[in-house]
Amino acid sequence: MTDSQLGRFAEDCRLIRQVAPVVHNITNYVAMGMSANALLAVGASPLMSSEPDEMEEIATVASSLVINLGCLELRQIEAMKIAACAMQRLGKPWVLDPVGVGVSALRKKTALELIEKYHPAVIRGNASEIIALAGGDGNPRGVDSGDRSDLATDHAARLAKSYGSVVSVSGETDYITDGDTMVSLLGGSPMMPRVSAMGCTASAITAAFLAVDRDALGAASCAMALMGVAGETASEGCAGPATLAARFIDMLYSLDPESAAAKIRIV
Amino acid sequence: MTDSQLGRFAEDCRLIRQVAPVVHNITNYVAMGMSANALLAVGASPLMSSEPDEMEEIATVASSLVINLGCLELRQIEAMKIAACAMQRLGKPWVLDPVGVGVSALRKKTALELIEKYHPAVIRGNASEIIALAGGDGNPRGVDSGDRSDLATDHAARLAKSYGSVVSVSGETDYITDGDTMVSLLGGSPMMPRVSAMGCTASAITAAFLAVDRDALGAASCAMALMGVAGETASEGCAGPATLAARFIDMLYSLDPESAAAKIRIV
Amino acid sequence: MTDSQLGRFAEDCRLIRQVAPVVHNITNYVAMGMSANALLAVGASPLMSSEPDEMEEIATVASSLVINLGCLELRQIEAMKIAACAMQRLGKPWVLDPVGVGVSALRKKTALELIEKYHPAVIRGNASEIIALAGGDGNPRGVDSGDRSDLATDHAARLAKSYGSVVSVSGETDYITDGDTMVSLLGGSPMMPRVSAMGCTASAITAAFLAVDRDALGAASCAMALMGVAGETASEGCAGPATLAARFIDMLYSLDPESAAAKIRIV
Repeated sequence: MTDSQLGRFAEDCRLIRQVAPVVHNITNYVAMGMSANALLAVGASPLMSSEPDEMEEIATVASSLVINLGCLELRQIEAMKIAACAMQRLGKPWVLDPVGVGVSALRKKTALELIEKYHPAVIRGNASEIIALAGGDGNPRGVDSGDRSDLATDHAARLAKSYGSVVSVSGETDYITDGDTMVSLLGGSPMMPRVSAMGCTASAITAAFLAVDRDALGAASCAMALMGVAGETASEGCAGPATLAARFIDMLYSLDPESAAAKIRIV
Repeated sequence: MTDSQLGRFAEDCRLIRQVAPVVHNITNYVAMGMSANALLAVGASPLMSSEPDEMEEIATVASSLVINLGCLELRQIEAMKIAACAMQRLGKPWVLDPVGVGVSALRKKTALELIEKYHPAVIRGNASEIIALAGGDGNPRGVDSGDRSDLATDHAARLAKSYGSVVSVSGETDYITDGDTMVSLLGGSPMMPRVSAMGCTASAITAAFLAVDRDALGAASCAMALMGVAGETASEGCAGPATLAARFIDMLYSLDPESAAAKIRIV
Repeated sequence: MTDSQLGRFAEDCRLIRQVAPVVHNITNYVAMGMSANALLAVGASPLMSSEPDEMEEIATVASSLVINLGCLELRQIEAMKIAACAMQRLGKPWVLDPVGVGVSALRKKTALELIEKYHPAVIRGNASEIIALAGGDGNPRGVDSGDRSDLATDHAARLAKSYGSVVSVSGETDYITDGDTMVSLLGGSPMMPRVSAMGCTASAITAAFLAVDRDALGAASCAMALMGVAGETASEGCAGPATLAARFIDMLYSLDPESAAAKIRIV
């Protein structure tokens, strides 16, 4: 592994276990269990809350935040704004996961407002979501991607340049860019999209890396590298998606950072 | 297998994998993860949303809808009405799962209003729920059934005739009826009611079959047949309900439609 | 096993399976699936609802209630008050799980108001939560404990005396006290805090024991003993937290009450 964006992978993995950063999640009801378990498995301390009344207090104890639009409700939007604003004010990083942003005007409006006003460190989505967010003509099929990730690289770079956020596109190849540099990673398995909330989990893991590594391009790349290595190892000889999900969590918990680093496949 | 209602089983299974229909779920918080993973495992694309503001847009991309009263909240009811109304207007099928309908006046009123105004293609519940919905004197114990499914067949047939919906009763024997024809199926395992949200999952799977097969009696029968075969196979030598849940999802993902069809047990 | 508080362990386990008590949960979105599956595994019948409009009706069918502040929302508080008040009026026991009570003023205010007005039979939390609730200067790190459980025993005893509730502190050693007697239990595994919602599950299991055993100190002790035995057995040779979670549920379902009783480790 030579790419400089991934040079801190093993160290970051160890730091997460050592520091156990509190990662605040404003996320959807489907992803909550999986995200919490993945964050606990890597060594972070997840905290789930969408109550506007406690967003300021939580921002003081959290090291990073992930905002996920998966089950967007009007009443959540106020909490998202307060939380993102507080993190920005405190100089702490946050991740936006624009789940199904092509599905409704409400999701697109909310995503763009959050990006423009509160500057996420990282925007992580599937190809259809990134294309829709960049104003392109993707093929959103609900919350699953209808597009290959390599079709979203130009949109990702444009989005990154426009808003100053790192953009992370998951797919058969993962692409992570700040608008100038593009990191491309292989890994994972074709069975991963059959596990609910895998994408949301990638966003939560990205927030965990950001909590210990303020280089957003590096942190987002390390997160996707971890998803890829753990997913690929977990899927070997796997009977189906439920077994994969369980093995994936076990792998996040038990993996040796150096061995995992050696398996990262930069394209 | 000779019953005409199940003749399209293998073809429907393949169609779901091929078409990957978007199935919209307005469901309870307990069932969300399990329903999403089951829908992904059979090849469908689940979308969870209860925000009234995006119900119309989601109806345009969804092939079918399931409305589940498991954690009914007043604020959800508006979303349920808009979504069911939109599906009816677009000629798309939807499934009602009247979870715990005997528990509160709010659940019963909501269920009956949704049925009367927006005509679900299928109503799927356990025996106590179907009896309570039909105005009978069942033995609802919270959201679990206190009645055997064969005690609900008359209520199911009456309910089906009254409202023009197919009624699907799950239990040791599953009964599916349009008021005239009654399909009876054996399968599953006594451990299945010990897995949370198994009934809700049956409703979600029913919506997946309806997405590719507009014969409601046939689609509902195929869905229960799939639940029965996958549950029965998954439970062989099973250590407990968590192992059963994981194997069940793996089975939905990996099963061969023809082999599964051969295992359906029509009574 | 000689401690009188645990003498009814095996009998209570059998009673839960036999009676299948309805346990009402007003809980957080992360814990719902795990709590429901754990309750089903021990033989209880979980019912999840936070809708104020049906709290009174549910109180009439429920044998016990657990209120969990994990994802506290303003709109839930009304439901919590109605439900706790109804249980108190009906002479039925309820459990408070003050998740993350040190994180926000809203959580602390809500917890104290519920305790003072509606007198929970048991308050169950981790060390940081119990210390924060007792007005002490703990080290709350989000919702995970930053303190060892033996540092919370004085706070637990004081809290129990002040409010007349049994206080149950989970940790490497579990402590359960009514202010006079202190039960100390070993068990579980260091991997358990890496499984999301394990603490919430302990509270749900406590409510299941209270449903069949009105001696709150005994019921709370039996619940923690079951958590400890099942957790310890499940964790043997375990690959990681997802495997542990599944084995733990399977164990709750399959354990023999007498054999489990023999494994309880009173300090």
